[in-house]
Amino acid sequence: MPERGTILSVVHNCNNVRDLKDDIACEIMYKFFVNNIWVGVVSKKDAHLIQDVSDAQKIPPLVISSIKKTITFSNWCDTRKKRSDAMATVLLQLREANTCEPLSKWRNELYLVGGDTSVSDGVFFELERAAAEVFGVRTFGVHVNGITVSNAGKVCMWVGRRSLSKQKWPGMLDQIAAGGIGNGVGVWDSMIKECDEEANIPSKISQKAKYAGTIQYFTRTEVGMQPETQFVFDLVLPEKFVPTPKDGEVDTFYLWTLDEVIDKIKQNQFKPNCAMCIVDFLIRHGNLTPENEPDYLEIIDNLHCSFEFPAPRSFTAV
Amino acid sequence: MPERGTILSVVHNCNNVRDLKDDIACEIMYKFFVNNIWVGVVSKKDAHLIQDVSDAQKIPPLVISSIKKTITFSNWCDTRKKRSDAMATVLLQLREANTCEPLSKWRNELYLVGGDTSVSDGVFFELERAAAEVFGVRTFGVHVNGITVSNAGKVCMWVGRRSLSKQKWPGMLDQIAAGGIGNGVGVWDSMIKECDEEANIPSKISQKAKYAGTIQYFTRTEVGMQPETQFVFDLVLPEKFVPTPKDGEVDTFYLWTLDEVIDKIKQNQFKPNCAMCIVDFLIRHGNLTPENEPDYLEIIDNLHCSFEFPAPRSFTAV
Repeated sequence: MPERGTILSVVHNCNNVRDLKDDIACEIMYKFFVNNIWVGVVSKKDAHLIQDVSDAQKIPPLVISSIKKTITFSNWCDTRKKRSDAMATVLLQLREANTCEPLSKWRNELYLVGGDTSVSDGVFFELERAAAEVFGVRTFGVHVNGITVSNAGKVCMWVGRRSLSKQKWPGMLDQIAAGGIGNGVGVWDSMIKECDEEANIPSKISQKAKYAGTIQYFTRTEVGMQPETQFVFDLVLPEKFVPTPKDGEVDTFYLWTLDEVIDKIKQNQFKPNCAMCIVDFLIRHGNLTPENEPDYLEIIDNLHCSFEFPAPRSFTAV
Repeated sequence: MPERGTILSVVHNCNNVRDLKDDIACEIMYKFFVNNIWVGVVSKKDAHLIQDVSDAQKIPPLVISSIKKTITFSNWCDTRKKRSDAMATVLLQLREANTCEPLSKWRNELYLVGGDTSVSDGVFFELERAAAEVFGVRTFGVHVNGITVSNAGKVCMWVGRRSLSKQKWPGMLDQIAAGGIGNGVGVWDSMIKECDEEANIPSKISQKAKYAGTIQYFTRTEVGMQPETQFVFDLVLPEKFVPTPKDGEVDTFYLWTLDEVIDKIKQNQFKPNCAMCIVDFLIRHGNLTPENEPDYLEIIDNLHCSFEFPAPRSFTAV
């Protein structure tokens, strides 16, 4: 275990799944397949809850095998629409039963589950966002590092404090803007949308953001599994621009030096994946180096976890 | 297989080891352990060549197990010095026997093999550079993206053509400067040294280089295995500065637009790991995006391969 308060402990805190193979071997986790493609992992407990609801349908849409330790769609769910509709029915009933905690945070937002090589966008089906961690499917989002650069080259970073009313991670520190990619909104448009909604950044400014790659990590929460990919953007803001909360997701914005930001990261004040995104920024811009950070190589490994699960080929068409 | 001429085909060409587990299962590859830590892979053919030379010593320093499919040091090789000396003796004799092709390209340069948690620098032993791919141990290097930025913000990149007399990849395109980290030279000092030796860049310029993370890939060549980590630097050069060959490793330097560089990458004119390093640059600086590059996510995965083999904790002390 890395020492508490180190950068490595913070990235381990987010990329915290090390024992998936063991959990599958011990039958704590079931593999979720669509058309023989492995797309996610479901806890044994949730697999049984899901199966109870599925079996109560006239024609059950899902099949759980306690011999193979798998969950799959029934053969009749053979199109994107049939899978999406069947899944929606199951999840709504499961939500009403109030037995599966993540579904109490229903979002009314659809995520795409990829892996279908027979269609151009690679999408198998759509899934209510709150259920993504129940099925342990890959999810995708955008994270924006909002910075200012003085004439002398000094970099400061805008940091948001999440509203206390947020469903997840209330009160913790966050990027200037970030959010999941769902509902058929593409990557770039998701970034523009989140900049507007979370920080009141007009598109004439946000469209100056630059793609800077991705971070990728596998998080286990108390209730589920999250193999996530975040598309990362750096956005240099005019020094006079001040972001303001708009949709109520953020309470306050702070403009801090990178040293102040690093201190807060080490104090675990950031939502874990936001800390990851800033650590990636610090690596890409040469603030963390092999000379000042003994865990340099291991930190980078943790920013780029690899998954066996496929991704959709496109996020734009639902 | 990705289509020829795509960026993905180029990164796959470098990160080309997909079947290591199968090769180990089929006994084509033997695992190389030091003190029960897995540090590399050796082909069955080379393992037998090495063993023949080891067994000819008065006290054999290496043990090959055809039951366990492993190669290890003998118990008496229990210090860094004993392991390094014993390995040097074996390799010099193997080189004289002229049976192991990589050793014909002897470099007189020592690489560090890491994984020893009982010492502060984590180093198990030193190994002649030419033998690194025979033992399939992790190696480390520096790669420098040398660029110019016009007042209007237009970025061009300096590219070197490797000398026809280079032992490896003669005549192919290369970074402005790059090289392996060996002989107790640290990461930063290796970068300064390569900039001077390969491109005649004075240290007052090269010390303005910025760390930009790492790329990591596992390459199988005709003769061996290379799990490599490259520390990546971006160096903005004065527009009037012209790099010139100094140590004969480079024949000519070209200053190209990024579009010209991308064309040469797709034409497979770059040494594979140099192409990887530029692709990483294009990802980090937003030239490749999910909108203009359909293989965006898979390309990034291939730039950040993960290894089970440990790294040294320090490169500076031999």
